[in-house]
Amino acid sequence: MFTEEEYQERLKRTKERMDVEGIEVLLVTNPSNMNYLTGYDAWSFYVHQMVIVILEQDQPIWIGRKQDANAAKYTTWLDSKHIAFYTDEYVHSRTRHPMDYIAAYLTKIGVGNRVIGVEMENYYFTAKAFEQLKKGLAHAVFKDVTLLVNYLRMIKSDKEIRYMKNAATIAERAMQTAINTIAEGVRENDVVAAIYQTQISGTLEFGGDYPAIVPLLPSGEKTSAPHITWSDVTYKKNQTVIIELAGCYKRYHAPLARTVTVGFPTKEVKDLAEVVIEGINETLLAIQPGMTCEEVEAVWSQSIAKYGFMKDSRLGYSTGLSYPPDWGEHTASIRKGDKTILQPNMAFHLIPGIWYDDYGVEISESFYVTDTGCEAFADFPRQLFIKK
Amino acid sequence: MFTEEEYQERLKRTKERMDVEGIEVLLVTNPSNMNYLTGYDAWSFYVHQMVIVILEQDQPIWIGRKQDANAAKYTTWLDSKHIAFYTDEYVHSRTRHPMDYIAAYLTKIGVGNRVIGVEMENYYFTAKAFEQLKKGLAHAVFKDVTLLVNYLRMIKSDKEIRYMKNAATIAERAMQTAINTIAEGVRENDVVAAIYQTQISGTLEFGGDYPAIVPLLPSGEKTSAPHITWSDVTYKKNQTVIIELAGCYKRYHAPLARTVTVGFPTKEVKDLAEVVIEGINETLLAIQPGMTCEEVEAVWSQSIAKYGFMKDSRLGYSTGLSYPPDWGEHTASIRKGDKTILQPNMAFHLIPGIWYDDYGVEISESFYVTDTGCEAFADFPRQLFIKK
Repeated sequence: MFTEEEYQERLKRTKERMDVEGIEVLLVTNPSNMNYLTGYDAWSFYVHQMVIVILEQDQPIWIGRKQDANAAKYTTWLDSKHIAFYTDEYVHSRTRHPMDYIAAYLTKIGVGNRVIGVEMENYYFTAKAFEQLKKGLAHAVFKDVTLLVNYLRMIKSDKEIRYMKNAATIAERAMQTAINTIAEGVRENDVVAAIYQTQISGTLEFGGDYPAIVPLLPSGEKTSAPHITWSDVTYKKNQTVIIELAGCYKRYHAPLARTVTVGFPTKEVKDLAEVVIEGINETLLAIQPGMTCEEVEAVWSQSIAKYGFMKDSRLGYSTGLSYPPDWGEHTASIRKGDKTILQPNMAFHLIPGIWYDDYGVEISESFYVTDTGCEAFADFPRQLFIKK
Repeated sequence: MFTEEEYQERLKRTKERMDVEGIEVLLVTNPSNMNYLTGYDAWSFYVHQMVIVILEQDQPIWIGRKQDANAAKYTTWLDSKHIAFYTDEYVHSRTRHPMDYIAAYLTKIGVGNRVIGVEMENYYFTAKAFEQLKKGLAHAVFKDVTLLVNYLRMIKSDKEIRYMKNAATIAERAMQTAINTIAEGVRENDVVAAIYQTQISGTLEFGGDYPAIVPLLPSGEKTSAPHITWSDVTYKKNQTVIIELAGCYKRYHAPLARTVTVGFPTKEVKDLAEVVIEGINETLLAIQPGMTCEEVEAVWSQSIAKYGFMKDSRLGYSTGLSYPPDWGEHTASIRKGDKTILQPNMAFHLIPGIWYDDYGVEISESFYVTDTGCEAFADFPRQLFIKK
């Protein structure tokens, strides 16, 4: 997907960080980081797998399940000597663990007693995986470097930005489909079916990949429970619906949220939407390289404070390359206390919203930082949508 | 979704197992197990959350992120005193960890120094989560009970079997859509878009939920890399395509796989399909309660051995209620060495296949064990499909 030069450059920056952190061997288990360093791309993260970066070696090593070694051959830039595998006896077994195999492998290649970096806070590096690894490598020194590669991913290459623009094109279409489809009497799942169709078919020029999170479109009182997924009940008149979805292109995401009312909105909803729209517009206008994430949050807070509002959750987060269950990069958050300095080609999902008990308004944009400000990835009307 | 009586019965069986294992407090972090015990259902497993079962208490406690506490209120049978939460400062923070909060909570309610069971091998219980929990609860004794609740889930209630039948109805439709759509010159992603549309729209009577794995449909040489996801390249004449998908109804799955050829198959593919079909038919006919999983595998092995074939990966696995990234239950596997005894209302995905380097044939069924044999959930022709 990227040139070998781009992967080599990513590997070089990874090794520089390893050197600074005193890490000799890095075990990369986060699927997004595995993809970032090697191109590896398959739905195989439900079994243990990793990419091993050894400071003094030219190529990382992919290691995983036997039947996925072919996926490594097809999707990575690694030569066949750098692809290793364990057999199916290790899969979901009560007597064998893939980390037993991997520990023996590390020992065999002579790095089992080194300073080994692991991603302790990663969905696919379980408590058990770490225990087995420690058992198998009694002389290794383990260090937690959970976000080492994640932080390198924050500043995108121009090609990565282009991928996210493609993702945004898909997000625009999926959002338009959602707005077209939502109506009184329509089932929630039928709206999601139409969204998925659009997300995956993409455009005539390029197809869509699966987003790391399913479309979410809570309505009515459920807007205060934003991660409840759809059901087969129908939308009712006067409900407010918050749609949050992403376009995805070759694992790169552009999330987008909008709010729709079924029938004419009440004055309260209309007023609230105006506050949110003014807030996001002011925030996007203010963003500049050199600002900190908490300064971005402060712009929003001050904007809505004029109308007496406060919001205590995060306003946004770094996004890009990702696998389920999350499209956030888990590095910078746009919130109080986050002093990350914005730099050109960083990308975020800015997701401001205000919720009451039985309705809420949320209008979001994914953007990247430019040399002089920021640019939203998607071009989609920033308004409350009304389905009469 | 289920009656409070059914949840109470599940809780009772859980406590019986806890008692046997010497566990006083069980921390359930597997989303499927959380759902099984409480009904909790939301796409919130990308942040730390759990259900706490305390041996002497009537209700479990749900604990998670503040904005998901409303989802717990809407989807579980728990009263509001049994729903606790941490604030957004703990989300993806480098200075605070949700397990710090949860450790303090367990201490506060007086169980922080007990024998605590944890699911060590669960995607959402990270190495870091366990470290923080141990730090916060220095006087607790931890025991690994990864599959304690998973094993209880193996034997389905009649209502769960009905849910899986609904899922199978959706799987049949999605498979028919896939077969109708695949053709020379059609992009892989457009086939997946149509599959998703069908999976989520479901039927007029009930809608579809998101399956725990995306549709997989490798073709040509990629059939030997079964977890590679789709691209936007087009299907070519004479390619063999293996389609693996599931229908999902209220988180219950019925997976199904079939093989399609674009254009007339070669004699080799036709012959291979006959071997696989004979093998799966003989295996399904032989299944009886009282047999072991490895005895089921032996039926298949003997069937294909007549034609000189051997298959070294798993033939199947227990399935049902699940969340991404896997619809397997991680308990019984249909393979050599697994001595699990089949009992009525156990459910499996039987997925036999034979692969060469550049093509393969796979034809699967999800089935449940009955009093006298087994029944396939789906009713879909067990054949090689030819798209002329």
